[in-house]
Amino acid sequence: MTKKQASDIAALIKKSHSILLTTHINPDGDGLGSGSALVSVLSKMGKKVDFINRDPLPDIYRFLPSSGKIKNINKVKGCYDLAIFLECPDLARNGHIIDHIKQAKRTINIDHHLGNVMYGDLNVVEPKAAAVGMQLYQFMQFNGWKISKDVACGLYTAIVTDTGSFAYSNTSPEVHQVTAELIKAGANPNQISGEVYATTLSSTRLMAKMLTALKFEGKAAWSVVTKKMFKETGAKESDTDNFINSIRSIRGVDIAVLFKEVTADSVKVSFRSKHGVDVNMIATELNGGGHKYASGCFIKKPVKEAEKLVISEIRKYFKTRKK
Amino acid sequence: MTKKQASDIAALIKKSHSILLTTHINPDGDGLGSGSALVSVLSKMGKKVDFINRDPLPDIYRFLPSSGKIKNINKVKGCYDLAIFLECPDLARNGHIIDHIKQAKRTINIDHHLGNVMYGDLNVVEPKAAAVGMQLYQFMQFNGWKISKDVACGLYTAIVTDTGSFAYSNTSPEVHQVTAELIKAGANPNQISGEVYATTLSSTRLMAKMLTALKFEGKAAWSVVTKKMFKETGAKESDTDNFINSIRSIRGVDIAVLFKEVTADSVKVSFRSKHGVDVNMIATELNGGGHKYASGCFIKKPVKEAEKLVISEIRKYFKTRKK
Repeated sequence: MTKKQASDIAALIKKSHSILLTTHINPDGDGLGSGSALVSVLSKMGKKVDFINRDPLPDIYRFLPSSGKIKNINKVKGCYDLAIFLECPDLARNGHIIDHIKQAKRTINIDHHLGNVMYGDLNVVEPKAAAVGMQLYQFMQFNGWKISKDVACGLYTAIVTDTGSFAYSNTSPEVHQVTAELIKAGANPNQISGEVYATTLSSTRLMAKMLTALKFEGKAAWSVVTKKMFKETGAKESDTDNFINSIRSIRGVDIAVLFKEVTADSVKVSFRSKHGVDVNMIATELNGGGHKYASGCFIKKPVKEAEKLVISEIRKYFKTRKK
Repeated sequence: MTKKQASDIAALIKKSHSILLTTHINPDGDGLGSGSALVSVLSKMGKKVDFINRDPLPDIYRFLPSSGKIKNINKVKGCYDLAIFLECPDLARNGHIIDHIKQAKRTINIDHHLGNVMYGDLNVVEPKAAAVGMQLYQFMQFNGWKISKDVACGLYTAIVTDTGSFAYSNTSPEVHQVTAELIKAGANPNQISGEVYATTLSSTRLMAKMLTALKFEGKAAWSVVTKKMFKETGAKESDTDNFINSIRSIRGVDIAVLFKEVTADSVKVSFRSKHGVDVNMIATELNGGGHKYASGCFIKKPVKEAEKLVISEIRKYFKTRKK
């Protein structure tokens, strides 16, 4: 974020009384932590702030300072002086809950995704930023805004989740420098990590079943979560968010695949890879897509047939690659 | 570390030609990463350096820059000008592999454990240091030693493992500031985390069995790893180091217990707790001990009897606590 952008955002906030904050569907720690930080700071400034998302707050984020004020609905009502979109590369990703032309006099789009379509009146899009939380920290620094304990907690949550606990390749020296300042300002790493990485008994039971069903061939390993497993354990879909990492982290596994049964005839497939293996190529063959090391697809087949299809695509990939 | 201590260490190193480095039994990321960093820097200074430990290097640390030079033996031979003990509160913890009075002209003891018995000629014991790696970073800073990429990799490994990926309560702002500098010096967070947190297929299979055997009662949850499970999966004891954290991180679980069958008639029991629950009190009742949130004991009974005994102690603890 440039100093100019930071002062432009501050000017828009200053002249706005009612402000809408919103993030993407299936909200994550970056969107929710960043939004929570903004709720804290804007409320203190006397603004009327609403933080509205299409999807509900996952339980692991209930500890966020302003979590009680986060609403989830399908359509935003009324008109705001200003709408701030956090981590939404386009309006579909936000879930189309607001007609941002009619329902907001001004729109700010703060994001770190490549391919953001620049739909705001002011667009601060920085693919190199590790998290929107990093962008907001800079924004507050440029404007000399004090980081309260609540703001620090929100921004820390944004950063710790979007960097995979400081392990992903987006973890720059700057990420650690900002994190040091957030801890000084009152963020509690131990408490926040405990909340964000807490599991549930039902998700642990599901994890046990998923790991028991693990299969492997060559440099690929995969497993399934079926509707029956969900029923037997009482786990929710969101409980499986990190499951694929337990497969990916196995030494010797370069492609990890997780099959989630959606209906008796359809499966959501997630891919993760390492050591140069490009799962985006495999997902694309199956009408899906994503990134080199993380992608996915949707297959309209029963889970066992989907498994065969995917494994044959993986075999093809490795054969072609060797040539 | 004070500037005086740092310059005293540097002076002892300067006048020594042969230097022995060593860490504790069952060496961890802090001892090995710190030692690896010292091997790099002392070798470059032209010193004859041996890094010798009683127990072998776990596979996950083979990526360390000087891992090929790390030896494990039961008795150190010969006499060194200087021995540097890393993370050894006493000589038993080092495995008694060296008679430090006869086999080293001078001894330096660098540690961050409460209860270090100050057995060195020079003792730098700082319980507030998050890792010995943090102490070594300060030492090099005070002396103006350049942090090479290899040194940065070793110190980063020390810090990331001893802070639980920057999540334990020892994660101070200073930890993040130092980490930022280590990344600038060439440490690769993504690569190192990938190595250190890599699992194996056999440990994943054992984890599946352990999680399947999970039981709970009130705020306690526990599981077992039996000799049969080890045999069926081919996993090693060291593979189970992080298992108890999967139990501890379950929401609502304040006491996590893991029973590891050692023989048909003996069990190693590990305790972890949160939310103020003091497992040291429970372990002490069972002739073990440790810390408030992490302790253990050894029970000479078959695993099922040990389980009954421990659970009854936990029930007693909660009853007494409520009064």
